[in-house]
Amino acid sequence: MSDKTNDQNPEQNAGQIRALTEDEVASLPGQPGSASRRNFMKVSALAGLAGAGGVLLAGCGRAAPGEHAATGKAHADEHEKHADDHEKKLESHEVAPGKLDEYYGFWSGGQSGEMRIVGLPSFRELMRIPVFNTDFAVGWGITNESKRVLGEKFPRGGDLHHPHMSQTGGHYDGRYLFMNDKAGTRVARIRCDVMRCDKITKIPNVQAIHGMRVQREPRTGYVFANAEFRIPSPNDGRDLDDPKKYQTMFSAIDGDTMEMAWQVIVDGNLDNTDCDYEGKYAASTCYNSEGAVDLAGMMQSERDWVVVFNIARIEAAVKAGKFKTIGTSKVPVVDGRHGSDLTMYIPVPKSPHGLNASPDGKYFAANGKLSPTVSLMAWSKVDDYFAGKLKDPRDAVVAEPQLGLGPLHTAYDGRGNAYTTLFIDSQMAKWNIQDAIDDYAGKKTNYLRQKLDVAYQPGHNHTSLGETRDADGKWLVSLNKFSKDRFLATGPLHPDLDQLIDISGDQMVLVADEPVYSEPHDAVIIPAKMLAGKIKRKWERNDPFFAETVAQAKKHGVTLESDSKVIREGNKVFVYMTSSAPKYGLDSFKVKKGDEVTIVVTNVDTIEDLSHGFCLTDYDLNMEISPQETSSVTFVADKPGVHWYYCTFFCHALHLEMRGRMLVEA
Amino acid sequence: MSDKTNDQNPEQNAGQIRALTEDEVASLPGQPGSASRRNFMKVSALAGLAGAGGVLLAGCGRAAPGEHAATGKAHADEHEKHADDHEKKLESHEVAPGKLDEYYGFWSGGQSGEMRIVGLPSFRELMRIPVFNTDFAVGWGITNESKRVLGEKFPRGGDLHHPHMSQTGGHYDGRYLFMNDKAGTRVARIRCDVMRCDKITKIPNVQAIHGMRVQREPRTGYVFANAEFRIPSPNDGRDLDDPKKYQTMFSAIDGDTMEMAWQVIVDGNLDNTDCDYEGKYAASTCYNSEGAVDLAGMMQSERDWVVVFNIARIEAAVKAGKFKTIGTSKVPVVDGRHGSDLTMYIPVPKSPHGLNASPDGKYFAANGKLSPTVSLMAWSKVDDYFAGKLKDPRDAVVAEPQLGLGPLHTAYDGRGNAYTTLFIDSQMAKWNIQDAIDDYAGKKTNYLRQKLDVAYQPGHNHTSLGETRDADGKWLVSLNKFSKDRFLATGPLHPDLDQLIDISGDQMVLVADEPVYSEPHDAVIIPAKMLAGKIKRKWERNDPFFAETVAQAKKHGVTLESDSKVIREGNKVFVYMTSSAPKYGLDSFKVKKGDEVTIVVTNVDTIEDLSHGFCLTDYDLNMEISPQETSSVTFVADKPGVHWYYCTFFCHALHLEMRGRMLVEA
Repeated sequence: MSDKTNDQNPEQNAGQIRALTEDEVASLPGQPGSASRRNFMKVSALAGLAGAGGVLLAGCGRAAPGEHAATGKAHADEHEKHADDHEKKLESHEVAPGKLDEYYGFWSGGQSGEMRIVGLPSFRELMRIPVFNTDFAVGWGITNESKRVLGEKFPRGGDLHHPHMSQTGGHYDGRYLFMNDKAGTRVARIRCDVMRCDKITKIPNVQAIHGMRVQREPRTGYVFANAEFRIPSPNDGRDLDDPKKYQTMFSAIDGDTMEMAWQVIVDGNLDNTDCDYEGKYAASTCYNSEGAVDLAGMMQSERDWVVVFNIARIEAAVKAGKFKTIGTSKVPVVDGRHGSDLTMYIPVPKSPHGLNASPDGKYFAANGKLSPTVSLMAWSKVDDYFAGKLKDPRDAVVAEPQLGLGPLHTAYDGRGNAYTTLFIDSQMAKWNIQDAIDDYAGKKTNYLRQKLDVAYQPGHNHTSLGETRDADGKWLVSLNKFSKDRFLATGPLHPDLDQLIDISGDQMVLVADEPVYSEPHDAVIIPAKMLAGKIKRKWERNDPFFAETVAQAKKHGVTLESDSKVIREGNKVFVYMTSSAPKYGLDSFKVKKGDEVTIVVTNVDTIEDLSHGFCLTDYDLNMEISPQETSSVTFVADKPGVHWYYCTFFCHALHLEMRGRMLVEA
Repeated sequence: MSDKTNDQNPEQNAGQIRALTEDEVASLPGQPGSASRRNFMKVSALAGLAGAGGVLLAGCGRAAPGEHAATGKAHADEHEKHADDHEKKLESHEVAPGKLDEYYGFWSGGQSGEMRIVGLPSFRELMRIPVFNTDFAVGWGITNESKRVLGEKFPRGGDLHHPHMSQTGGHYDGRYLFMNDKAGTRVARIRCDVMRCDKITKIPNVQAIHGMRVQREPRTGYVFANAEFRIPSPNDGRDLDDPKKYQTMFSAIDGDTMEMAWQVIVDGNLDNTDCDYEGKYAASTCYNSEGAVDLAGMMQSERDWVVVFNIARIEAAVKAGKFKTIGTSKVPVVDGRHGSDLTMYIPVPKSPHGLNASPDGKYFAANGKLSPTVSLMAWSKVDDYFAGKLKDPRDAVVAEPQLGLGPLHTAYDGRGNAYTTLFIDSQMAKWNIQDAIDDYAGKKTNYLRQKLDVAYQPGHNHTSLGETRDADGKWLVSLNKFSKDRFLATGPLHPDLDQLIDISGDQMVLVADEPVYSEPHDAVIIPAKMLAGKIKRKWERNDPFFAETVAQAKKHGVTLESDSKVIREGNKVFVYMTSSAPKYGLDSFKVKKGDEVTIVVTNVDTIEDLSHGFCLTDYDLNMEISPQETSSVTFVADKPGVHWYYCTFFCHALHLEMRGRMLVEA
């Protein structure tokens, strides 16, 4: 394939790239030596990405015209065959009208605060699930039912990074999706049966939940969450100017109850996390070993760490009462800083980023970011360390392949290959795990299989089922941060760009570009057949999501499925009504100015997809009521006059006429 | 094509469809007689859509298996040729990675409150533009700049239905997009150069802006807006129980200033609107001639109206002072009810819905909704009426083709054909305008060219350039309200379903299904080349969107492009900083608990697509700052401690490290 690359687009790079001298390159922290690297990369020039503050990163030019960027065992005749395959694979992305996608993608919505359901391979966005946001379309943050999840005083937004599905025995189990909020220091859960968020937990004692994963064995179980920023403890105004007293923590949340289980104080800043396939360990990349509070300060050391958490030991310490609590929080906090027997600090090159466990259960990779390498570690060596049999934590590293500039995240195909995003190079590097291990052991190998240009600056990537035992090696997505001129102009803000890559053959083939709204960080890809029958297309009347509203109606002697009536208790007015296309149970109701009004609407339609809405004009409220659902909203009737309510989800040829009047007496 | 139809999906229709007797059908309001209709439709069975409240609509069965739904001049051998074309056209939807779309689609986001930019033919959503919503991703509703547009006390959401681009001489001119908010009775404007909303106008004296269009000649000029719901005047608590005193109005807004121009009181409820190609008239569908406040009451009359507004006469009346004002509003209000010489009421079958002017400048169509017909009227007859030369307003009707059940909206191809959505039949009907006129004049013709199944229940449709003189007859979209089982399950709420139809040949060919979030109502489709060079990819420093913030900085002696400093004025603290990947101009700043803090960030990066974000952890604020933009936010520092701010738009390999500390002294 011949994508438009940065090189063809000189204006894009103006001011960003400059050539580095060999000395400069050699002096970069964590660089394994410029000469061998240049040879390895088979490129003719080195360029530098100069950031403010004097921090320099080596940048690597594209392959010269006619020179294929892939190294490894690609041969000329294979290339011809691949050209033929390429056309076929491009078509494999197309899902004809009326046909279903084969995979679900569950996609981060980033600072939009939502989660997205995407169909693959078509890349069509099937649904938005509001989580850390207010969504007027469905009434998220407006209905009483959603406020019970969000809390009465909920933030306007959040920064959702990492959605992951609950697992049992290392397989997706279709129960829940979990996700973090970096902006609001929260973790949320979506029920997969109704695809609605049912729990949000504010994580105490820390700031900015970033990396987040779920326990694989025996099941989820724990949700592991990294707090990234170091703060005073408690963060009540003390120690503002004494960064040496700042700290952060690793948190475990009980995925069944969404209650906090325990927290572990660490050195450094926590970035991404993952866990093993045996239920013994979680591991996090950990940067800023300097404990600095500015960029220059964070760039002093040669190395940072991967920190491994020994779950059984932490649980035992908590059980034994070897913990403290902080401020008003009752969460047990243990000390996992250097010297603790609860943790293991594995030195890796400076500022590691992604942390990815391989689906064979053997390894976990820390992606180099500022180093062109990925550090691959073996869980068995972690066993050895905690058993006192590993002298140097660094000996847990079993491979450290050199891949290119800006390795951020690694995904797996279940066939022994790994795929690493290269942020600076704007490429996806495919490499063979065993070959990389052999190479590290001294046997020279060509572990690099292929490099594929992506557009542009990839962050996370993800393979279908690649974070489970079922990795199927079919699809890879590259979640790119820049789209530059790859789409029609949309104004100064550009979309991000997700790309779909077919990895079913020997070579990666790019099959689709999809523009996306700010800002997908991560995604998971799950075959639709694995979730078949688990996702409901209608509500059941006894669903817990609106059980509290049903209980309140019962107290009022109201049968929601048939009654439409108004009940007054002092200045509180409860308005119960059914909705059935194209009519609400009440054509009008009357209240007094200043009344606190609760409107409860029950959709008695039984036909799939026949959702109703309830929107009250000039009262700033709207809610969705899907078939067999009850939704409610409470507000103060502070504006006198006639205010019409109307149905916002098209339901019938007379949908436009589906409305009624709230009469507010002055 | 053989789509999955309702008929193959019996569960979907359970409870919705029942057979009607012939007597029932004949007695339906607005029905032209069941026998001829059955013959016309060439179908074997009639079914009824029974709504609550006893309202019955005739439903029309699908064509029997083997019987082609299209009538008109389709021949067997043509069909074979079409089968070959079909495959090619399916591919025409595909836009390969790296290739640009040929058309912009500007799409309503319905009750999500946003507008969407869509690329066609790929159907990819390129960008969301927040308008009547709060958007944490970019800080809409959070920044001071957006609050200047929204107002300090803005609603959480809105219900955006109809986006239309400004025109000059009947051609799109790339200046503005205008759109209505039904929930909040507002009209908004988006600047096309930066694709950002810059003005929102609350429409006084009325409730629920629904139909909205722009003046074509000589230019936009006016934005015409229908208020749908009838309310007391003023709506302050008086006349709650006296619906006879309720009324609604047609509004004209000055598109250049977004100030109100004038309003016209009408009979009935206003639905959709459009205007002519000469700058003389606007016309609106108008239902509920009964002035009822419930569904049964609205169904009594045989006919409702299209009301035509004589713009010159209204302007003259206003100029002559023949108007009143209502309450505190200063907007001139004229009386256009029956008997006024400012308006013309054209009787059409019950509850007409869409109103669509043809691109040849000659006609305007009212879509029957409850009648299987579209009423086509001639602007020349309107001239005659206002000149006293037309005896009966009904004589303005020049054609009334019978198309099928539930005609809602009509689009045009510029080749003399019209395309009408049939909500109940779930079909798109293509018909020839001249043939329909000839038929109405008594010459029997086969004006119906083709019927295409769509999935399911289409509302609006739109053709490329079809609302301008430049209608190019290439693409038609059908915006369908139900998707039922056409996508993977997403929980009880289903996506809507937009479909792309190639109309470049004799036959319509469905080429793509796209799921969409609640709820697109309408869209416009414009060739990218028509907007080439009009949409900026970076901000200019003198942009008016942030001019007030720049002026404030100037007063403080701050040069935004280079200064990073803190200025205190009593308990007000102004924090100015630059952002340049991967650094903010300030690593930290200190305030006191209770201070009102204004943070002003200027992105000094000049590279396209290098947006920064500013997110303040646990302070619920985030904003986008795109290249060369200044964004600001004001809040009270009510929580003591260290609060990190960080960049939310990936900008650099060290993006994660791009952050600083707000130190809040207790």
